[in-house]
Amino acid sequence: MTITDDIHPMQNQQPMAGYRGIHFEWQVSDDHKVATIMLNRPDRKNPLTFDSYAELRDLFRALSYASDIKTVVITGAGGNFCSGGDVHEIIGPLTRMAMPQLLAFTQMTGDLVKAIRACPQPVVAAVAGVCAGAGAILTMAADIRLGTADCKTAFLFTRVGLAGADMGACAILPRIIGQGRASELLYTGRVMSGQEGLDWGFYNQLHESDQVLAAAQTLAAQIAAGPTFAHGVTKRCLHQEWNMGVDEAIDAEARAQAICMQTQDFHRAYHAFVARQKPVFEGD
Amino acid sequence: MTITDDIHPMQNQQPMAGYRGIHFEWQVSDDHKVATIMLNRPDRKNPLTFDSYAELRDLFRALSYASDIKTVVITGAGGNFCSGGDVHEIIGPLTRMAMPQLLAFTQMTGDLVKAIRACPQPVVAAVAGVCAGAGAILTMAADIRLGTADCKTAFLFTRVGLAGADMGACAILPRIIGQGRASELLYTGRVMSGQEGLDWGFYNQLHESDQVLAAAQTLAAQIAAGPTFAHGVTKRCLHQEWNMGVDEAIDAEARAQAICMQTQDFHRAYHAFVARQKPVFEGD
Amino acid sequence: MTITDDIHPMQNQQPMAGYRGIHFEWQVSDDHKVATIMLNRPDRKNPLTFDSYAELRDLFRALSYASDIKTVVITGAGGNFCSGGDVHEIIGPLTRMAMPQLLAFTQMTGDLVKAIRACPQPVVAAVAGVCAGAGAILTMAADIRLGTADCKTAFLFTRVGLAGADMGACAILPRIIGQGRASELLYTGRVMSGQEGLDWGFYNQLHESDQVLAAAQTLAAQIAAGPTFAHGVTKRCLHQEWNMGVDEAIDAEARAQAICMQTQDFHRAYHAFVARQKPVFEGD
Repeated sequence: MTITDDIHPMQNQQPMAGYRGIHFEWQVSDDHKVATIMLNRPDRKNPLTFDSYAELRDLFRALSYASDIKTVVITGAGGNFCSGGDVHEIIGPLTRMAMPQLLAFTQMTGDLVKAIRACPQPVVAAVAGVCAGAGAILTMAADIRLGTADCKTAFLFTRVGLAGADMGACAILPRIIGQGRASELLYTGRVMSGQEGLDWGFYNQLHESDQVLAAAQTLAAQIAAGPTFAHGVTKRCLHQEWNMGVDEAIDAEARAQAICMQTQDFHRAYHAFVARQKPVFEGD
Repeated sequence: MTITDDIHPMQNQQPMAGYRGIHFEWQVSDDHKVATIMLNRPDRKNPLTFDSYAELRDLFRALSYASDIKTVVITGAGGNFCSGGDVHEIIGPLTRMAMPQLLAFTQMTGDLVKAIRACPQPVVAAVAGVCAGAGAILTMAADIRLGTADCKTAFLFTRVGLAGADMGACAILPRIIGQGRASELLYTGRVMSGQEGLDWGFYNQLHESDQVLAAAQTLAAQIAAGPTFAHGVTKRCLHQEWNMGVDEAIDAEARAQAICMQTQDFHRAYHAFVARQKPVFEGD
Repeated sequence: MTITDDIHPMQNQQPMAGYRGIHFEWQVSDDHKVATIMLNRPDRKNPLTFDSYAELRDLFRALSYASDIKTVVITGAGGNFCSGGDVHEIIGPLTRMAMPQLLAFTQMTGDLVKAIRACPQPVVAAVAGVCAGAGAILTMAADIRLGTADCKTAFLFTRVGLAGADMGACAILPRIIGQGRASELLYTGRVMSGQEGLDWGFYNQLHESDQVLAAAQTLAAQIAAGPTFAHGVTKRCLHQEWNMGVDEAIDAEARAQAICMQTQDFHRAYHAFVARQKPVFEGD
């Protein structure tokens, strides 16, 4: 037996198309490339619970090793995205917990954001209606965000007596919309309108409420039709270079791109160009 | 005597409402929560001097341990914010100093920015008219900025033969308005108009010149009515996560938010929600 | 002989006005302060080749020690900026290279961006028409960008099967236009319009296609007429503080600005102000 015998990383790559969500809906496109997570407690505007946090964390961790799913859409049922942590099922219990339990909870929620950032699939959020608290965080943690003109995005932690420092908001939100705008939202907890979100670079596009999910799925399918191994490299670089010097980031990308130049997708694109055809990428 | 006997951190927290400014006005709201610093040499458009720099630095350092003041507004008298370092009282003397003195000066001015960023009170700048040089830096160092359509904000160091690298501008300004816009302002020293400031995320709101101070004080009072202990946590996280990786920032926030979940303000918010009332925060 | 005898840093500063470009045009203004690099294979929309990459890298490295050139404009001939790496002269050969060669190439391209960021001269890009792939990267690596309403800027690496992680794009682009907009451009490879570029802070100004070069040269001349030693300090601080904490950046600027306060340009500005004259800076 050799070292090679002992290492079968591809065996760890499991298809995820057959996953069945317990605390949310999990839908996959016909080609299994685009998965849609739909938070679906619409009567309560899709709040998160301890269990749904944990399931989402585990799902995104599993996606890191998925062999089929290439992009992920996250949305909410019934015209709202997510109202955040449920007051009765999360906030109430938190007021009665001791520190070790509190820290276990905040670390779990943070681990969800880490998992969203760590999986190679670009994540597209489709947001309508209420997008508050942890819901706003989920949106922030996505790679691309589609909203509606009347969606209401609020990092409202301050309204429940907490810090804006929740699940990475003080680090991530300023990189998306700038330090000044992020500061105002985090200190006041006020709603960011859809138009503000578009103007500030939080939302990439605005759509009608009944069309935003389809638009997100179309965009996700377009990205899934691209060189998905390279997309994973892009996502990891966007994440890791956050805290590098410029020169170190440039070197990291030299190595990353050299790896991508040995993929079949790079060769496919070249040969398609020479043949004046549109390349068909396969993600390897 | 125990270790606990020897440590009385609360004893170090002194009320600051009774402070009397020497080189600027210091006003406090009736409830002592909102303090307003007004630079007040209006005939000269409120320039800074060696002494006013030092007093501002010491004031913001003292605010770190203040038990009463919850938010700070900084503004200028007579329709202008601040014309920067006084040509006769600062620039002239600097041209005659040796390096140790020069460094002592630039470090003191930098220490003022550090103190503004380090105190737990969110700082709101109310800017009208001229906002130039060190005045633009003071504005940049605030958490939230309110301006006017015709205010003139200029990082004009290049116009006096200096670098744009003054008091943290090359680090902080790009995080507020982006690297490209910051580069142009710092290389050319040109005025950023109020509308540009709003469009670029430097100013959070624009108001009429005679109303911008009142608007800033209203916003500061609104923030002061929130969970001020948590606000201090938000401010520190916004500062410290600047140079962390995303995952480290998420972990830092997990610890920070768990601490906030043990505050009375968090419990007050929950109980108010259950009772369908508006929470009254007390900052503990 | 003393240590001082052995060190003549100024002797290393060579004039660059007489440089003659092999793979692009090199023009200098009458006063030799502003140099213009014009990519000039207009029939192919000015693609880059292995040789032109290398020459550009070496040119920008030499500019670090140039005693005459104070600002640099980079543009393309014939109404387009640059179509990126040539498909036949670069992409084809890359598909046939082994990893050591691939890495040598990606490191060379990265070294070009490093050299653009490391030279003390502010770089102004004048962009019309197509600005794609490595052309978009060259633009991104400049300090200030002037475009046209109909210029087409595309980080289209994904279209050729590669990652958006090319020559520092995952680190630099988010700092200019924000993380969300950068993510969309890098995952989709889509064109950013001139108006989007302006609204998002990528382009500082838009001009007519036949006027954008002149506007860039005018702006470059204006910057070259400023305190150019201090400009070099600004550029280095903008680069190095990228990955510092706020407090460390403030200290770095205290030292940097104290150095600038010992320049003649700072004294010239002060004496001109006292004499109610416009200062004439000389860069020392």
